[in-house]
Amino acid sequence: MNAEEILQLLHAVDKKNVSPESALERLKHMPFEDIGFAKVDHHRALRQGYAEVIFGKGKTPAQAAQIAKAMLSKKGSRHNVLITRADAKMFAAVKRVARGAKFHPLSGVVTIERSLEITGKGTIAVVSAGTSDIPVAEEAVLTARMMGNRVTELFDVGVAGIHRLLEHRRELTEARVIICAAGMEGALPSVVGGLVGVPVIAVPTSTGYGASFGGAAALLGMLNSCASNVTVVNIDNGFGAACVASCINRL
Amino acid sequence: MNAEEILQLLHAVDKKNVSPESALERLKHMPFEDIGFAKVDHHRALRQGYAEVIFGKGKTPAQAAQIAKAMLSKKGSRHNVLITRADAKMFAAVKRVARGAKFHPLSGVVTIERSLEITGKGTIAVVSAGTSDIPVAEEAVLTARMMGNRVTELFDVGVAGIHRLLEHRRELTEARVIICAAGMEGALPSVVGGLVGVPVIAVPTSTGYGASFGGAAALLGMLNSCASNVTVVNIDNGFGAACVASCINRL
Amino acid sequence: MNAEEILQLLHAVDKKNVSPESALERLKHMPFEDIGFAKVDHHRALRQGYAEVIFGKGKTPAQAAQIAKAMLSKKGSRHNVLITRADAKMFAAVKRVARGAKFHPLSGVVTIERSLEITGKGTIAVVSAGTSDIPVAEEAVLTARMMGNRVTELFDVGVAGIHRLLEHRRELTEARVIICAAGMEGALPSVVGGLVGVPVIAVPTSTGYGASFGGAAALLGMLNSCASNVTVVNIDNGFGAACVASCINRL
Amino acid sequence: MNAEEILQLLHAVDKKNVSPESALERLKHMPFEDIGFAKVDHHRALRQGYAEVIFGKGKTPAQAAQIAKAMLSKKGSRHNVLITRADAKMFAAVKRVARGAKFHPLSGVVTIERSLEITGKGTIAVVSAGTSDIPVAEEAVLTARMMGNRVTELFDVGVAGIHRLLEHRRELTEARVIICAAGMEGALPSVVGGLVGVPVIAVPTSTGYGASFGGAAALLGMLNSCASNVTVVNIDNGFGAACVASCINRL
Amino acid sequence: MNAEEILQLLHAVDKKNVSPESALERLKHMPFEDIGFAKVDHHRALRQGYAEVIFGKGKTPAQAAQIAKAMLSKKGSRHNVLITRADAKMFAAVKRVARGAKFHPLSGVVTIERSLEITGKGTIAVVSAGTSDIPVAEEAVLTARMMGNRVTELFDVGVAGIHRLLEHRRELTEARVIICAAGMEGALPSVVGGLVGVPVIAVPTSTGYGASFGGAAALLGMLNSCASNVTVVNIDNGFGAACVASCINRL
Amino acid sequence: MNAEEILQLLHAVDKKNVSPESALERLKHMPFEDIGFAKVDHHRALRQGYAEVIFGKGKTPAQAAQIAKAMLSKKGSRHNVLITRADAKMFAAVKRVARGAKFHPLSGVVTIERSLEITGKGTIAVVSAGTSDIPVAEEAVLTARMMGNRVTELFDVGVAGIHRLLEHRRELTEARVIICAAGMEGALPSVVGGLVGVPVIAVPTSTGYGASFGGAAALLGMLNSCASNVTVVNIDNGFGAACVASCINRL
Amino acid sequence: MNAEEILQLLHAVDKKNVSPESALERLKHMPFEDIGFAKVDHHRALRQGYAEVIFGKGKTPAQAAQIAKAMLSKKGSRHNVLITRADAKMFAAVKRVARGAKFHPLSGVVTIERSLEITGKGTIAVVSAGTSDIPVAEEAVLTARMMGNRVTELFDVGVAGIHRLLEHRRELTEARVIICAAGMEGALPSVVGGLVGVPVIAVPTSTGYGASFGGAAALLGMLNSCASNVTVVNIDNGFGAACVASCINRL
Amino acid sequence: MNAEEILQLLHAVDKKNVSPESALERLKHMPFEDIGFAKVDHHRALRQGYAEVIFGKGKTPAQAAQIAKAMLSKKGSRHNVLITRADAKMFAAVKRVARGAKFHPLSGVVTIERSLEITGKGTIAVVSAGTSDIPVAEEAVLTARMMGNRVTELFDVGVAGIHRLLEHRRELTEARVIICAAGMEGALPSVVGGLVGVPVIAVPTSTGYGASFGGAAALLGMLNSCASNVTVVNIDNGFGAACVASCINRL
Repeated sequence: MNAEEILQLLHAVDKKNVSPESALERLKHMPFEDIGFAKVDHHRALRQGYAEVIFGKGKTPAQAAQIAKAMLSKKGSRHNVLITRADAKMFAAVKRVARGAKFHPLSGVVTIERSLEITGKGTIAVVSAGTSDIPVAEEAVLTARMMGNRVTELFDVGVAGIHRLLEHRRELTEARVIICAAGMEGALPSVVGGLVGVPVIAVPTSTGYGASFGGAAALLGMLNSCASNVTVVNIDNGFGAACVASCINRL
Repeated sequence: MNAEEILQLLHAVDKKNVSPESALERLKHMPFEDIGFAKVDHHRALRQGYAEVIFGKGKTPAQAAQIAKAMLSKKGSRHNVLITRADAKMFAAVKRVARGAKFHPLSGVVTIERSLEITGKGTIAVVSAGTSDIPVAEEAVLTARMMGNRVTELFDVGVAGIHRLLEHRRELTEARVIICAAGMEGALPSVVGGLVGVPVIAVPTSTGYGASFGGAAALLGMLNSCASNVTVVNIDNGFGAACVASCINRL
Repeated sequence: MNAEEILQLLHAVDKKNVSPESALERLKHMPFEDIGFAKVDHHRALRQGYAEVIFGKGKTPAQAAQIAKAMLSKKGSRHNVLITRADAKMFAAVKRVARGAKFHPLSGVVTIERSLEITGKGTIAVVSAGTSDIPVAEEAVLTARMMGNRVTELFDVGVAGIHRLLEHRRELTEARVIICAAGMEGALPSVVGGLVGVPVIAVPTSTGYGASFGGAAALLGMLNSCASNVTVVNIDNGFGAACVASCINRL
Repeated sequence: MNAEEILQLLHAVDKKNVSPESALERLKHMPFEDIGFAKVDHHRALRQGYAEVIFGKGKTPAQAAQIAKAMLSKKGSRHNVLITRADAKMFAAVKRVARGAKFHPLSGVVTIERSLEITGKGTIAVVSAGTSDIPVAEEAVLTARMMGNRVTELFDVGVAGIHRLLEHRRELTEARVIICAAGMEGALPSVVGGLVGVPVIAVPTSTGYGASFGGAAALLGMLNSCASNVTVVNIDNGFGAACVASCINRL
Repeated sequence: MNAEEILQLLHAVDKKNVSPESALERLKHMPFEDIGFAKVDHHRALRQGYAEVIFGKGKTPAQAAQIAKAMLSKKGSRHNVLITRADAKMFAAVKRVARGAKFHPLSGVVTIERSLEITGKGTIAVVSAGTSDIPVAEEAVLTARMMGNRVTELFDVGVAGIHRLLEHRRELTEARVIICAAGMEGALPSVVGGLVGVPVIAVPTSTGYGASFGGAAALLGMLNSCASNVTVVNIDNGFGAACVASCINRL
Repeated sequence: MNAEEILQLLHAVDKKNVSPESALERLKHMPFEDIGFAKVDHHRALRQGYAEVIFGKGKTPAQAAQIAKAMLSKKGSRHNVLITRADAKMFAAVKRVARGAKFHPLSGVVTIERSLEITGKGTIAVVSAGTSDIPVAEEAVLTARMMGNRVTELFDVGVAGIHRLLEHRRELTEARVIICAAGMEGALPSVVGGLVGVPVIAVPTSTGYGASFGGAAALLGMLNSCASNVTVVNIDNGFGAACVASCINRL
Repeated sequence: MNAEEILQLLHAVDKKNVSPESALERLKHMPFEDIGFAKVDHHRALRQGYAEVIFGKGKTPAQAAQIAKAMLSKKGSRHNVLITRADAKMFAAVKRVARGAKFHPLSGVVTIERSLEITGKGTIAVVSAGTSDIPVAEEAVLTARMMGNRVTELFDVGVAGIHRLLEHRRELTEARVIICAAGMEGALPSVVGGLVGVPVIAVPTSTGYGASFGGAAALLGMLNSCASNVTVVNIDNGFGAACVASCINRL
Repeated sequence: MNAEEILQLLHAVDKKNVSPESALERLKHMPFEDIGFAKVDHHRALRQGYAEVIFGKGKTPAQAAQIAKAMLSKKGSRHNVLITRADAKMFAAVKRVARGAKFHPLSGVVTIERSLEITGKGTIAVVSAGTSDIPVAEEAVLTARMMGNRVTELFDVGVAGIHRLLEHRRELTEARVIICAAGMEGALPSVVGGLVGVPVIAVPTSTGYGASFGGAAALLGMLNSCASNVTVVNIDNGFGAACVASCINRL
């Protein structure tokens, strides 16, 4: 029951076709969302308003293709479509229903670009520490782009060669939001956070071995960052970092 | 050596008082920051540009008072002063050097307000789950206020009585950034994140006992949030959450 | 805005005092709970319908006494009042406002009994492994009693002297729900679960030292119970176990 | 030695064929269970009285089929048979000995339905947060059904889109017991627990990645639930949750 | 109901005073232990047969003294009495009821020696790594002595000065069982285990700081010992190690 | 330099061919072991004196076979040969060099029996909780047998059906040492320890899923056992448990 | 902009072609490193000055071969090339571009030796505890050799057979730095550290099973070493240990 | 039996007072160390050769003073004396026996300087990240000085203000060994390691709160350092870091 239906009901009361008491009864039992009193689902809006997203992991290629097809045929929508955690097989299936689909094997992302509109106000810089952090960084880059943001990539600027990072201070200071993907000791966001005055979203990666404990070392490092403009998302969650960055960049 | 000194040096070259070669030598050995080529320390700016901050923990009352005094006597500055993790003794000492100081015993924060200027563009909502999360939430509220932000408080709106949160949907949707402090299962940021389209900064609190493991349960819950606009700071870090929120609110 | 007010509004529409359109506007903005469509807060009912509960930890004696006083003066209510995690000082303060208050120092529980009505259908057996588990077990016993249940206590029947437990098989099989408090290896619920056909609520206790890791060993043991009628609550959460048991016992 | 044999022995004493002393000796050494004094194994009854269960993991298809065959040929029993953690190969083997067997690939459950009798008094609602929690939720649904319960399914009602859950409040409030399967932050049981007055069995799932640490994040979240009618079972233990729910539903 | 009572019952059957059927009924309902069919409680025997033990932690001085008094006045028993985890206050209270009580402040053990009988067949060597492990080692030494064993002490023979250990090879090879208390890296049992052919009971101690994590480092080290004659007890459990060693030494 | 060489040196001194001073010099620099003063390596003796052992994991089938061949051709030795953590391929390779080799696929153990001599004084009982603990229990059984012990197997006697264990009390009380393999909650050793007066070696198994955390739950449970005759070895270390049990059984 | 360019700029000022003010502007914006003021990247020097290193893990054989080829064709360089974490396929690809490449399958290291120069001042001893630690030890040995050090190997000298280690005291005392690779309890570095006066670099290995938790047990053991000349690197990081040892050996 | 006694024995052989055979027998049974064949205890030498060290924690003031007195009165020794983990009371006691003792309250170190000799070849730089790391850094500084090293202090140069560190590059590059104390994210050693070519000893500190988990976050960060010249010691182990640094500096 949406606002229109409620209005109809109220008109029926107005016209004495329905008694106030039975109107109350109907109001009492109407499903929550349908009444349309409030736009509850900002979350869905957040994702779907700017890009349609499919989380590929755990889905069969056929399922992913079917969902993509449904998204593409939705009327009036020209949103970009993004499939994360996909593989070559899933891409092949998607390719059959979306000729323009592209596969990014490093990050396992499939993109179907339909809109080039830039909705983010500034630039999002995606910084990564080592070559093995690139898959996560790329997931962030592609997600941010598909959501309508300008993105600058600064890869392989880990803290053990600090000059590499310092060379790019200009790109850092020009960004409106920064995403920092780093594994191992996860020190990069602290250094970057100290160099800029904008929000830094830290993404620990599961890079490394031994005492990296699947990214836990980097995660803890980032949570304990001594830079006060750093927040953290889940290990390997390049997609989530880009969602938040995009959300900040539209403010 | 700052920009002015470099200019002097260049003028000396211009006036033939110094040869280019010896100017190069002097440039080569000047300390990095002093050359003032770039404003490296955005971090300090971030904190001190909007509020002077003293981390009280581990300092003696006398030390804190002395630092506060120095901050207050800095010429040309009218910034607010904030002391976090203070106690009544520290407050007593600070009170002696700053008559206008106020103590907030729940959060252990001392505030010395000198500027009422609002620099944040929108409102920061600080939401907390239970009464025992209030100390952390209050630290966030006071920090955000001292940094020049409008703040809305929504306390005691935990997820086990979901209607309490839903009653305040208006305040949530009107905020430009939301800080969510919650202990125990740390579920609040996910629910809040689903209700709004703005960034949500989650602060796990060390509330609880047993399997809360000092806030680790809430921390993990928040890192795994199914809402994609949630990022996380360290356990009990209300100050840090407010720094980031303030930083976003000035964008 | 409750059901009555909505009815008033609908009558106003019926009487042409309010147009359907402006009625819709008012409906759109009414706070959620006040509309009274549904009794959302079953949770509060659960606790307050049968006993008024104060979580003493983190409250001052004065605060606890004040809340207790308010509960006792609520009109039309004769519910028992329960204060958990209290100490002697808090009890002294409560005693002043509630002469009938009793203190149970082992568990730190204060009880103010006002109703002897039994609302639970069967008996709840509270079983504990060692003497050091008794504080938690007693919290469960008192909570269950204050919520209107018959309770049987079987203390000090740990698994290393299995005959002690087997001697009490009759009490176990006669219970409708069983609460099992155990620290150290947390094996008791598995053995008890194997002896009965009713639900067993396992409460790990923080008893022990070294590799008990504050009750984590017992918690893990209980979660891995090989008996399929065992569920688990938080470490030392005797109160919670009794809430669930009471909730089951009223079915 | 069962009751009958003991009676024979006592008759022999009565008839002077056996002296009291040697009767005592025989009694002393008889195996415990065989004396039949008490029905110790309620546990087995719990499972087998209502459904025959095979834990498929770690068994070969042939073994599972053989056990299923034995169960099906047991005289006088018409119980349903349930195989958990099975795969397609195991199903194929079982299918050969039980034509009516059905395979549920999402949850890896094989069901052989022989009885449609409903023994549970009310309805068990099985609620799950995301699509990736469905395998665990389905295991719970099928187990509960095979044990003679009416089951309502509410899938994909995670807390980040809270309206989805609120729409189904009726189904929730009509249930006698609720099973809640959720991974990631494990917040669903707290919200559900706050909406109802009946027991909620929380099942953490190993859904997620990174800091979900194989379901540990959800597990900790659930153990710290701020709703007092929530208990927890092991990660991914949909079967166990259904056993307990069924056990409560028969009370 | 003990063996004698059962015999009486059987005689009553024999004398026709009781019918076999009603005898069966009485047998069916007798409590388990009382029938005396089997000596179930070897555990109690284990402890009390050789020494009476009071676990002091969590008991008041008065309680400990009262229990000790009861033990000392038990007829026909001349067992030694041992109180572990005691302090000076508890000792003072015990001293009043047991003049011969001795306090060992390092380990917090009170001993009341009443029997000098040696029941262990060989010698138990108690080896400790550093001076800070001595409290745990002393608890083991005193427990083993009070349980009737000859004990050799080899303290401060940590692995970083391996010659100190090697100097005592004779004492090691002459022992029938060895207890090894070590904190920090917990390496001692592996080295000792490699030098002897008898069982080595390893006791991790909570010595150390930082990454010793309260003895967890030593515990893990011992569980991973490359010597195949090493078993492990809980952190700081000198008492338990001595119980097992004593149990082996009586074989 | 062995004893013979030292004797030669001493004779040289005796015959004045070498001065005492230069003899001292030579003695000072001789390598430790070669002097043969003491048989340090009891460890090797422990394993090899009673059975030759090959740890199969990480070795190729060819390597295992080669080592086995070498062991079998050692002169004067008729010890049994044991290969743990082997698979069918390794067995096939070993079979070629040792016709009498037998493979035990559940535990992955290969045995080559050459001696039937019983050197253990009593019986070792190997008790296991569930069917999935049998691989570890079997490794213990076979190791103990190959090392010359009489072994009783009591499998599938988990604590959730306590009567199954109690039926076998006789076998338990007749054993000289007991090995207890259990996964999940690891409660079995505590119950068994309470029933007997002999040492119980607890072996946690990696059975289970979710919060069993690869056997850590069982391990912690066992370390916290409330029975004082229980010691613990590493997860899945059936071999080690049998080594210790064998070592105790030879005392 | 390097030193030369700055000099040009200064000459331009000197020649009045550029005003001091605009020179300042240009200086302000020049990228950091290009000014060549300092050789920041000692790190790269550290690795590449003595050996070219490729971390094979995560690279395709083709990529590794391509990088190796580039390294080999760099003019004026005769450094050794080292590929760690390689496999047979990667070796095959590298072999095609570097005929002299050798593969070390145990450690997965490929070496291309081009220089035999010894740059380390003393000998590095690489000591390992068990045969399963050899892969890590070999990685250390090969890395150290390729970096120009003399290396002594002491393998299989674990602490459970302490004499094996003591036999090699001479090699230990003759080394200038010692690398100690050990899994399981990680006790070796403590014993070795006690025998020598030089730095000992401890490398925990992921050897073992169960409570070794992937090398965490060894890691913790080493961090808690009671020998004060021991430092630790990451689990399985033989390469890193050799880098540090080589770095010390060149001092 | 020391070298002299062995010589006596050899002379006795020489003089035919003792036969070679019985000399061999006596040699066989002499205790290991007393023969003085080898200087086993390098470890003791390491500490005592350069400074006498007392670990104050767990000792009474009287005990510490007594040990210090003994050290000071040892003939022929002029070593510095160092007491770590001391407090004001312990210092007062030590002061009475050593007038020249100095107390360093930040680090809890007492120093008794008797020798100003510099035995280290280069300078040790001690770098710390934040003010709260200074206690650990100071322990390292004082230990290194008392062991005869030149020490440079670079405090409060954390990575979030990277320019502070870069300003001191000269001091860093001039050091022969660097000690890096850092809490929180523990990123400093990676950055420092990248700037220099000498060994960096990283000391995690227990600074911080929440997810710093007592220094574990910093520890893990350092173990995962991407700089290959970094090794790690235990949390807060400034003493140990200085021991190793000193040991390297004497090479």
